[in-house]
Amino acid sequence: MRVLNQRIRLSTKGSGDMVDITQKLSEALASSGLRIGSLSVFAVGSTLAITAFEYEPGLIEDVRDLYERLAPSEKRYAHDETWGDANGFSHLRSAIQGQSMTIPFEDGRLLLGTWQQVVLAEFDTRARQRELVVQLIGE
Amino acid sequence: MRVLNQRIRLSTKGSGDMVDITQKLSEALASSGLRIGSLSVFAVGSTLAITAFEYEPGLIEDVRDLYERLAPSEKRYAHDETWGDANGFSHLRSAIQGQSMTIPFEDGRLLLGTWQQVVLAEFDTRARQRELVVQLIGE
Amino acid sequence: MRVLNQRIRLSTKGSGDMVDITQKLSEALASSGLRIGSLSVFAVGSTLAITAFEYEPGLIEDVRDLYERLAPSEKRYAHDETWGDANGFSHLRSAIQGQSMTIPFEDGRLLLGTWQQVVLAEFDTRARQRELVVQLIGE
Repeated sequence: MRVLNQRIRLSTKGSGDMVDITQKLSEALASSGLRIGSLSVFAVGSTLAITAFEYEPGLIEDVRDLYERLAPSEKRYAHDETWGDANGFSHLRSAIQGQSMTIPFEDGRLLLGTWQQVVLAEFDTRARQRELVVQLIGE
Repeated sequence: MRVLNQRIRLSTKGSGDMVDITQKLSEALASSGLRIGSLSVFAVGSTLAITAFEYEPGLIEDVRDLYERLAPSEKRYAHDETWGDANGFSHLRSAIQGQSMTIPFEDGRLLLGTWQQVVLAEFDTRARQRELVVQLIGE
Repeated sequence: MRVLNQRIRLSTKGSGDMVDITQKLSEALASSGLRIGSLSVFAVGSTLAITAFEYEPGLIEDVRDLYERLAPSEKRYAHDETWGDANGFSHLRSAIQGQSMTIPFEDGRLLLGTWQQVVLAEFDTRARQRELVVQLIGE
């Protein structure tokens, strides 16, 4: 059994940007040489999230609408008063969605479904440089 | 330390079916012989989810209502246009709830609360054959 | 590779109490002597949750409002009929938020962002004694 940490660094375009990271996770797994175990992806930050869904333009639009209903971007939030900031909605979406996901692998392959892509959901109001920790535990 | 993957295969009855899988997870743990570690259950697919709640008829009804308010089944979704399909709401509920859960175990027993059952939530519009990966890491 | 379980026990003040547990998690990690691996925190129970957000008074208020919109405390729930209880909303908030979180660590330090505090969200209607399992896997 071994544990390995890797990093994925990428640029996002601000609120509503949904980045399919499935391929990068598969590459991280391949480079580890591990065959069976657990891959966890963890987003460092509090205005983004990790989720999984069928990555196609229609559903991407639906997911954006869902987050907008959950925490409307035009609503006033107490957090915005604290910092003179305007990303209270970004924090709420991140808190409810969660910032990590754990996926099993076997025979060196992630056990995802065909329509189950892993997605970084950017909620912040501006473009960001993001760091994801990919942790592999297995043998 | 060892890592083991098992599979649970089961049939669901379509949208709103909530299946208590706690007993099956306990059996997977027992068959592994592991005493301390981590059990992760991962649902392969994008129109179902894993959650945990007190599995009793009243709360099952409440949980269904919650999902219906989050992503109404009668709403029109862009995803439905993409495929001429009608399960956009199923995908959204899966994305927000999440498709996995990690539970610690000790002395060969899952450390769940008395009223904390692990539940497969089926959101798809039709009956499905489902595969869950149960991954055990421990010793 | 080793696996270690620890417990955090704490008192909460009932619905809406948000307890920053980040420091306690860091102490659990320090006491383990592990340098690289995975920390999972798991809340035993079905009327509380684990989440992460910037722990400041404005956002705490916003998070409370979000949960209130998701599962209003004044709504009638079928669960309340079952037990003559009144915490149906507590169960729903717990189910949708989730009762655990997994965080990678490296060099003996949790890889959290600066504004990413780990929070126990109490949803039950009364003060509770809570037990969290902190599981460390690594080397």
